Amino acid sequence: MTKTELRGHSLIAGSEVTGRAGTAQAVDPRTNAPLDPVYTALDAEQTEEATRAAAAAFAGYRSTSPKDRSTFLDRIADNIDAVRAPLVERAMAETGLPEARLNGEVSRTVGQLRLFADVVRVGNFHGARIDPALPERSPLPRLDIRQRRVPIGPVAVFGASNFPLAFSVAGGDTASALAAGCPVVVKAHNAHPGTSEIVGRAVTAAAAECGIDPGVFSLVYGAGSTIGQQLAADPRIAAIGFTGSRSAGLSLSATAANRPVPIPVYAEMSSINPVIVLPGSLSSDGVGPEALASQFITSLTGSSGQLCTAPGLVLVPEGAPGDGFVDHVAALLPEQTGQTMLTPGIAEAFGTGVAALRSQPGVDEIASGVPGVGENAPAPIVFTTRASEFAANEALAQEIFGAASLVVRYRDAEELRAVLEGLEGQLTATVQATESDFGTVRALLPVLEGLCGRILWGGWPTGVEVGHAMVHGGPFPATSAPATTSVGSLAIERFLRPVSYQSMPPQLLPEPVRDDNPWSVVQLHDGRVKGSNP
Amino acid sequence: MTKTELRGHSLIAGSEVTGRAGTAQAVDPRTNAPLDPVYTALDAEQTEEATRAAAAAFAGYRSTSPKDRSTFLDRIADNIDAVRAPLVERAMAETGLPEARLNGEVSRTVGQLRLFADVVRVGNFHGARIDPALPERSPLPRLDIRQRRVPIGPVAVFGASNFPLAFSVAGGDTASALAAGCPVVVKAHNAHPGTSEIVGRAVTAAAAECGIDPGVFSLVYGAGSTIGQQLAADPRIAAIGFTGSRSAGLSLSATAANRPVPIPVYAEMSSINPVIVLPGSLSSDGVGPEALASQFITSLTGSSGQLCTAPGLVLVPEGAPGDGFVDHVAALLPEQTGQTMLTPGIAEAFGTGVAALRSQPGVDEIASGVPGVGENAPAPIVFTTRASEFAANEALAQEIFGAASLVVRYRDAEELRAVLEGLEGQLTATVQATESDFGTVRALLPVLEGLCGRILWGGWPTGVEVGHAMVHGGPFPATSAPATTSVGSLAIERFLRPVSYQSMPPQLLPEPVRDDNPWSVVQLHDGRVKGSNP
Repeated sequence: MTKTELRGHSLIAGSEVTGRAGTAQAVDPRTNAPLDPVYTALDAEQTEEATRAAAAAFAGYRSTSPKDRSTFLDRIADNIDAVRAPLVERAMAETGLPEARLNGEVSRTVGQLRLFADVVRVGNFHGARIDPALPERSPLPRLDIRQRRVPIGPVAVFGASNFPLAFSVAGGDTASALAAGCPVVVKAHNAHPGTSEIVGRAVTAAAAECGIDPGVFSLVYGAGSTIGQQLAADPRIAAIGFTGSRSAGLSLSATAANRPVPIPVYAEMSSINPVIVLPGSLSSDGVGPEALASQFITSLTGSSGQLCTAPGLVLVPEGAPGDGFVDHVAALLPEQTGQTMLTPGIAEAFGTGVAALRSQPGVDEIASGVPGVGENAPAPIVFTTRASEFAANEALAQEIFGAASLVVRYRDAEELRAVLEGLEGQLTATVQATESDFGTVRALLPVLEGLCGRILWGGWPTGVEVGHAMVHGGPFPATSAPATTSVGSLAIERFLRPVSYQSMPPQLLPEPVRDDNPWSVVQLHDGRVKGSNP
Repeated sequence: MTKTELRGHSLIAGSEVTGRAGTAQAVDPRTNAPLDPVYTALDAEQTEEATRAAAAAFAGYRSTSPKDRSTFLDRIADNIDAVRAPLVERAMAETGLPEARLNGEVSRTVGQLRLFADVVRVGNFHGARIDPALPERSPLPRLDIRQRRVPIGPVAVFGASNFPLAFSVAGGDTASALAAGCPVVVKAHNAHPGTSEIVGRAVTAAAAECGIDPGVFSLVYGAGSTIGQQLAADPRIAAIGFTGSRSAGLSLSATAANRPVPIPVYAEMSSINPVIVLPGSLSSDGVGPEALASQFITSLTGSSGQLCTAPGLVLVPEGAPGDGFVDHVAALLPEQTGQTMLTPGIAEAFGTGVAALRSQPGVDEIASGVPGVGENAPAPIVFTTRASEFAANEALAQEIFGAASLVVRYRDAEELRAVLEGLEGQLTATVQATESDFGTVRALLPVLEGLCGRILWGGWPTGVEVGHAMVHGGPFPATSAPATTSVGSLAIERFLRPVSYQSMPPQLLPEPVRDDNPWSVVQLHDGRVKGSNP
């Protein structure tokens, strides 16, 4: 058996487990044809094996050295890279996404794992703080107090359909949880079970090769309504990472909140990602109406619009330059061909969403493209309405997952601001502007900072850099946990909590807060950063 | 009118507001006599004035310079210090706590405000991160991305009965929220309304003296079940800080979770703070049974046992040295006189809790003290049971708020570990041990790190240092938010969330992430700390 031969079963703590609760099969969305193999679904008892193994592995894994843990993450990356070609091929069949996009996503996934390996080596995430004893302080001496962050325990990860690699089995949630020292149980996404299995085998092999307890990783197959809810309720699970729909995210949040011991749910859900076109950008000093329209369509239609940060709302000033932008959209969009969507269900929901938006009063179609060849490839479409209509009708602000967008025309800066203040929380907000708009932007920035997790000056929100400064998050309902991010190195903090040590003998102190600082981490002494990273 | 003359009304954005929803009066728990003045309770419309003012003030306050914000915090501290004598006098009458304790608490409150002023000046809390552009990167260039944390918005603070200063109107939650840039609406605790009013006037005056928008602070009087719930549901409130009972904390959490836009609740609730006595500490190399017993009683009975970190559970080995500890407790406790509890209701609940514990099978009284003079001063009491009984009966692990504790005798390290693994989340865990116990402690540390927020080697958990490395928090039900702390400078992170800026022109970047770094904060460049604090 090769590393990429698909077997159709769960992987629990290094072992293949044939599910006892029925079977399911993915389809190729390009043809609606079923894809082999059939996948077996776990029953409750089998699923619990995974959480038991994770809990048992936690004790050892939480204490792994930076070297061992980072080597493990790097090895996962290497193992995924080594199966890139068959992985991309299977992912194409399961998702309908194009080869170049999936190849890029493999690179992003691998890069993300290596970023977290680096984070583990550098060690700032330990949050080491030392307040030395002050025996002479009056009226009372101060005792020696030190603080570091510890991993919270096994994490259940629910992958997303639209990123079968970067937000799935070994995606950002898994990478950040493993980097934090938390075992992971991944609920395989039923739309890409084979892609999941290939990656799951790569992770499993990495654990074996690195001498890591196999219980740190399991990949379980079954329905979200059964084993997904079971994972969220399992007392051994300490947190949930989720990317997907608002309804599924809220359902997991409710389950987690109603446990005897509630746990955090890091759910990334819904966003329409406003793009704010200001007058300067439409002028001769700016990008100009035609290029803006062209860039907009590229951003909107990439991956068939199935990106969390797709531009679903474009705010354009009334008047001739804004009309020019709309005219160019109207001219360019009919040339666009629909691309295959991820699943028949998603394509159907897209159609329903588009029909609902079309039926709203005051909404007009600017243009649409043409349906793609094959199944599930609806035409991209752009609507328009006035700001006053938009503000008065919540239905116009609903996310349509796919290549549909709404251009909202605003009268002036005041009306623009009112629209932005009325929006729900977003992942991103993009400003298309020039220096002539600085005054307007300056006034809007506090509104945008309260609205979203990432503010872009120019460019388009699709394309999320995986780095140290990235925030892929934002106020509810963009996410259920606005103080965190699901992309970038800050994500590791989701899976940690602080503990302090009072008067602890040096021999018992954990490495990050020892005076001899064996891991060379940056320590805060009395609230001051002492030393810097090499 | 002097600064400490009590008027009996709410303070909303700098103005005194006479409530329209009835009145209430505090009692002196030493005598059960009512204390003037009568306090008027706000109705819903009046309460909303406070949140409206907070929301209106947020826009300006969030952008205050480090100098202006830290000066405001220092001024609040100065103003409280200036009314120390009448403040302590009123607090004694409202809480029955002794003068020395309340004087210490004023110092702690003032010190806490000054600590956060320092945190604001140093600026690490901005979490500045810069990933510079890499225009030459292939296959795609990297854009310039920067991250900082922004304040989340108005915070509702619910003070605790047992710390009428340090966990109340200008306590840790208020200090950390104001430091973060968030306006605060404090729901006055009905057990110490006059203490609250004196402090509220000090804060209000500080805002006026420093030219800070008065809407940044309001102090509202009324019932928790009406205006308290209203604050938790108000769409302008972005987070809740709470210290108090488990039932009240869970009620606020439920309200906050069921809002259209859920918000975080930082509730510190219930903890019995296990103290683990290991054999070494009872030996001639250790503290010894007599001194341990004496220290235990001092920690248990201080503030009438009404401290979140009071030692409610002491784990003592079976055998002669442990018997010696119990014998000394039995000898010393009868000399202890009960101190006045905070309210008649709390004294009554203490009696109920003690009676319930006494009625449990396998629980025996070791000894009790004598009731104090005056009202509401029940005798301190210590019970004992075996580890097997404790493990089998959840009722034995219920917190009794007050000077009652349970000594649990364990057979060996294995039984000790099982007891600890069966406990709910705690604020603290204390190890009484010597070098001879290192092996046992090393094996227990991961359990303790999973159990609580602070681990003490020797000493007693009462007494919480306010510094940079302190964690006053822990897993549920110790708190509702184990990733945070309610004491110490890390608490500021509760009221912040990260935002990133992509390709933002330098002229529009916020100060903490500018290349010229005008506030001299520590910035993370590509995940590396560059530079250190002076």
